[in-house]
Amino acid sequence: MGVVASLPAARQPDTARSPDPVLQMDALTRLLGLVAEDMEACNRAIVARMDSPVALIPQLAAHLVAAGGKRLRPLLTLACARLCGYQEGARHVHLAACVEFIHTATLLHDDVVDESLLRRGAASANAVFGNKASVLVGDFLFARAFQLMVEDGSLRVLEILSGASATIAEGEVLQLATQNDLSTSEDRYLDVVRGKTAALFAAACQVGAVVAGQPETAEAALCDYGMNLGIAFQLVDDALDYAADQAKLGKTIGDDFREGKITLPVLRAYAAGDAAERGFWRRTIEASEQSEADLDEALRLIARHDAIGATLVRATGFAEAAKTSLGGFADGPIRACLAEIADFTVSRGS
Amino acid sequence: MGVVASLPAARQPDTARSPDPVLQMDALTRLLGLVAEDMEACNRAIVARMDSPVALIPQLAAHLVAAGGKRLRPLLTLACARLCGYQEGARHVHLAACVEFIHTATLLHDDVVDESLLRRGAASANAVFGNKASVLVGDFLFARAFQLMVEDGSLRVLEILSGASATIAEGEVLQLATQNDLSTSEDRYLDVVRGKTAALFAAACQVGAVVAGQPETAEAALCDYGMNLGIAFQLVDDALDYAADQAKLGKTIGDDFREGKITLPVLRAYAAGDAAERGFWRRTIEASEQSEADLDEALRLIARHDAIGATLVRATGFAEAAKTSLGGFADGPIRACLAEIADFTVSRGS
Repeated sequence: MGVVASLPAARQPDTARSPDPVLQMDALTRLLGLVAEDMEACNRAIVARMDSPVALIPQLAAHLVAAGGKRLRPLLTLACARLCGYQEGARHVHLAACVEFIHTATLLHDDVVDESLLRRGAASANAVFGNKASVLVGDFLFARAFQLMVEDGSLRVLEILSGASATIAEGEVLQLATQNDLSTSEDRYLDVVRGKTAALFAAACQVGAVVAGQPETAEAALCDYGMNLGIAFQLVDDALDYAADQAKLGKTIGDDFREGKITLPVLRAYAAGDAAERGFWRRTIEASEQSEADLDEALRLIARHDAIGATLVRATGFAEAAKTSLGGFADGPIRACLAEIADFTVSRGS
Repeated sequence: MGVVASLPAARQPDTARSPDPVLQMDALTRLLGLVAEDMEACNRAIVARMDSPVALIPQLAAHLVAAGGKRLRPLLTLACARLCGYQEGARHVHLAACVEFIHTATLLHDDVVDESLLRRGAASANAVFGNKASVLVGDFLFARAFQLMVEDGSLRVLEILSGASATIAEGEVLQLATQNDLSTSEDRYLDVVRGKTAALFAAACQVGAVVAGQPETAEAALCDYGMNLGIAFQLVDDALDYAADQAKLGKTIGDDFREGKITLPVLRAYAAGDAAERGFWRRTIEASEQSEADLDEALRLIARHDAIGATLVRATGFAEAAKTSLGGFADGPIRACLAEIADFTVSRGS
């Protein structure tokens, strides 16, 4: 299925601790190298468990899998389990697959809701298979995720991941409710971010502690790490939507703008803008009246008030908090990688 | 919320055993009377647990709850638990609410997929709140259902309901794959019916046996009852789409026809039709080329070949199988009602 092949090959350790921004990418690659066998097993589990006698299900699921996501969330589950000393068995592998299924289900539904035509630089599933199939296969993957959890047999894991699933849906609905609304507060925006993105990062990390039989303090610390990392990740994603080119992002720049999504760059530019600028934002975001030149004007206003910089400053704060949450764990290569990933999450936006 | 008020009031027992077709409706009413307190508790649980700080979620969920479904599936859970002698506690109440949440989530997604404007005679949620909100609130209710199961704490219940959820989604995807395809076999059509409808009936009944601590034979018998009842229910529903008026059904007649859905009445009329009739079905169902007069012609052809009668004969067979599955349970008013509901499921189509 090209799943394993799509993962970046592990680099040599001797170059891996360089502070060079390009090599900082290697925190992810290095972590993948540290849990390479686990990730291969996870990819096999994903392919095996997305199967169904209903052919359209594996076809559509394979489209997403082949598009080759970063597998960041299952990587977090695998790494956190190993960080906590998990040794025997494959519980972490199956729960990592489960986390990826939940993520994939939300991606499928997101793309329907956002009417996106691109996902990771390729045609989105809804563009290829239609909205109907995307909704229903999303439902299947979500149900399959719960079957995987039930097979694992831990009620604690089920509690964490069913709670995260409800929180994700709440975050998505809240995002819909704040769409086109420039009176959205930054706190409310952060509630959206916590729900739609960070809750699954948090749960992915936390279940790593659960399978390793760690006490609640370790669970809470990894939950905090994932939550703060997830917030930083989404803030940078929101910044990149006004800052990066399409090829670099694997998505169309200006998507959030065209959809009237309320993100921190817009809130900051709107708050700092003069009367004319505020009028521009009200027309384009609140009234959804946009012409072709408007995205360039939005980029200009965001640059003028350094709203990207301000967003990255906030992201840095959450990345620092993520690193702090790792303080209680034994030092070693996995902890080091997890800390560097927090830094890299922000540096990719700079 | 008008939930309890929307349930039909219990009739007097002295009229309740009449074989009169109108009074046969009372098998449902009588069963509701037998578990009235349980159902009130279930309705309270539904209202309490569909709440969320994100206001749009309870607003949209209340729209469906206020539309006043039959609550047939939670009623089955409550009745089967009592049939199996469940006495103490409220596990059956919370699992009945959970079953209704799963059902409501699938309704929300169904209406998006089918682009339905009506649900139970009122405007559908997607028509009022939009497709996006319907997809996301469906996801929330599905996640909330799993939270309710996790609170119950039985891995067996979680296994049954997560399995049913995956089977439902598979059935829905299979239905999408067979849409507009007149070469669909009756077996494949029945696979769709088992998945999209009967699997949840089966699971709703089976978990009643689980909370009562019954052995697997009782679980299997109630699973069979629900599965056969659910198939009969869907076959009659498919017949009614070509036979009933909109007010009686609470849905637009001819919905399935307009959507090119493959159902037994169409398969039977197509199989029995002459060359001209087959041409009609290929144009209207396979090529989706329909004009205003086509529904009347479809009704005429279906009547000509008694395809409704043939569908109801098959439904009767499944209703009989459902009744047979109840043979091992102690005779009493709940068993009698469950058996009569199987009969009523078919007689509502006659």
